[in-house]
Amino acid sequence: MNALEKLEKKNNEGKFICVGLDTDINKIPDHIKIDLNPVVSFNKAIIEATRDNAAAYKINFAFYEKDGAAGITNLGKTLSSIPEDILVIADAKRGDIGNTSKMYAKSIFESLSFDASTLNPLMGKDSIVPFLDYDEKLHFILALTSNPGANDFEKLQLSDGTFLFQKIISKVIEWNEKKNCGIVFGATNADELRENIKLFADLPVLLPGIGAQGGSLQDVIESFKTIKRKNYLINVSRGIIYKSNGDDFDRQAANELENLNSQISEILLK
Amino acid sequence: MNALEKLEKKNNEGKFICVGLDTDINKIPDHIKIDLNPVVSFNKAIIEATRDNAAAYKINFAFYEKDGAAGITNLGKTLSSIPEDILVIADAKRGDIGNTSKMYAKSIFESLSFDASTLNPLMGKDSIVPFLDYDEKLHFILALTSNPGANDFEKLQLSDGTFLFQKIISKVIEWNEKKNCGIVFGATNADELRENIKLFADLPVLLPGIGAQGGSLQDVIESFKTIKRKNYLINVSRGIIYKSNGDDFDRQAANELENLNSQISEILLK
Repeated sequence: MNALEKLEKKNNEGKFICVGLDTDINKIPDHIKIDLNPVVSFNKAIIEATRDNAAAYKINFAFYEKDGAAGITNLGKTLSSIPEDILVIADAKRGDIGNTSKMYAKSIFESLSFDASTLNPLMGKDSIVPFLDYDEKLHFILALTSNPGANDFEKLQLSDGTFLFQKIISKVIEWNEKKNCGIVFGATNADELRENIKLFADLPVLLPGIGAQGGSLQDVIESFKTIKRKNYLINVSRGIIYKSNGDDFDRQAANELENLNSQISEILLK
Repeated sequence: MNALEKLEKKNNEGKFICVGLDTDINKIPDHIKIDLNPVVSFNKAIIEATRDNAAAYKINFAFYEKDGAAGITNLGKTLSSIPEDILVIADAKRGDIGNTSKMYAKSIFESLSFDASTLNPLMGKDSIVPFLDYDEKLHFILALTSNPGANDFEKLQLSDGTFLFQKIISKVIEWNEKKNCGIVFGATNADELRENIKLFADLPVLLPGIGAQGGSLQDVIESFKTIKRKNYLINVSRGIIYKSNGDDFDRQAANELENLNSQISEILLK
């Protein structure tokens, strides 16, 4: 299965939640902290508990890079404990001149074997193409992010009346010759999603911003339901993996994910 | 010495060339390839040969990340072989939501101990501030890059008539409360540099695009000379480190750097 097929399969099973493994040693339960490798132990327990109900996993590189070479090893170990049929996204937000992006793509798809990446498009087409050359993978390109800073540049109005994030979406559609592009679109503001969702065409969408960042699950699901679209992922990180700080953190994470999945099927069946 | 002082000291000695360590195992001389750790051997030889004349070094993370955990170890070893008084830039172009940028900053300035970073500002202020909190460091924020893709978004005209890269520069000036911001501005087009240089105010500038990418050393030096500005670095990577593929690669790299420095002093003295 290529990356898009993995996504479609899970979406067809009614699974839309991407579990974000932003694992922070300071936030994991005390009884795990004494393990030889607490980050990997924690991730393995979370994956074991959520694998049957997760649509995808997203590994946030920053949380691993901060531990240097050992962190990269942990990242690889985490990746290898995720079942083969589940999409795994390298949330690294890379993007550089072509020559350099080629090396970043090698790192994500060869040195590590992720199914998908998040990319920063500021530097334009030649910074993105070396990733798209991995045609069996999926590439979620930042359009509108869920943080306050999205106002600084992404939401600037251009001389043609459109906004920068809309221009990014239209460029991604243009670049999508291999049908392996997606976008990142923040779910913090339901109106923005509703107003722009038709611009996305058939691009797969990764939506951060639910939960801790204030977005509404119901609004997102209804927006996609209205236009009869699948191929999207709602990312939840802290809301699942740190649901409990006790001995039962993994069971609580699993419960929270099942709870979200039930809410989703209720909205979809309504 | 903090990062800005390191830069000023070298600029005052007439040194403006930043040596880019984009070390690619496929491009290093054959006699080094048989070493136990060819990338580190190559870098050490280049640093040894150029340390007296380099204004700074820039380590391009992609070229190390592609080797996984071993690459990060090589990156650390390279860093530790650079003399303490020379600015070393982590060319990683990071930028993410605040919580995540904080981890990337920890990675660059604590796990590794770089003096400076390159940052991608697309996600706005809260993606940059966690880096700026390291106030003794320097943070070069992408404004206008030297690649063809700069036309896709960076050079878009905004509704107020300015261009996105100009808006980025004005925001960087606004964010520069700790006097530790700089910008990246491509040197490929001399007119663009001349037309915009006054917008930079006193921000330190990192200029890629000389040599392999087509920019002119003379144009850059003259542009800064005209406005009586220092605090800038002209990056040269391939043009120095791959000047020769023979046994004398390090000596040839040193010669090329001295040659560039002579051209610079000639222009400055004119």
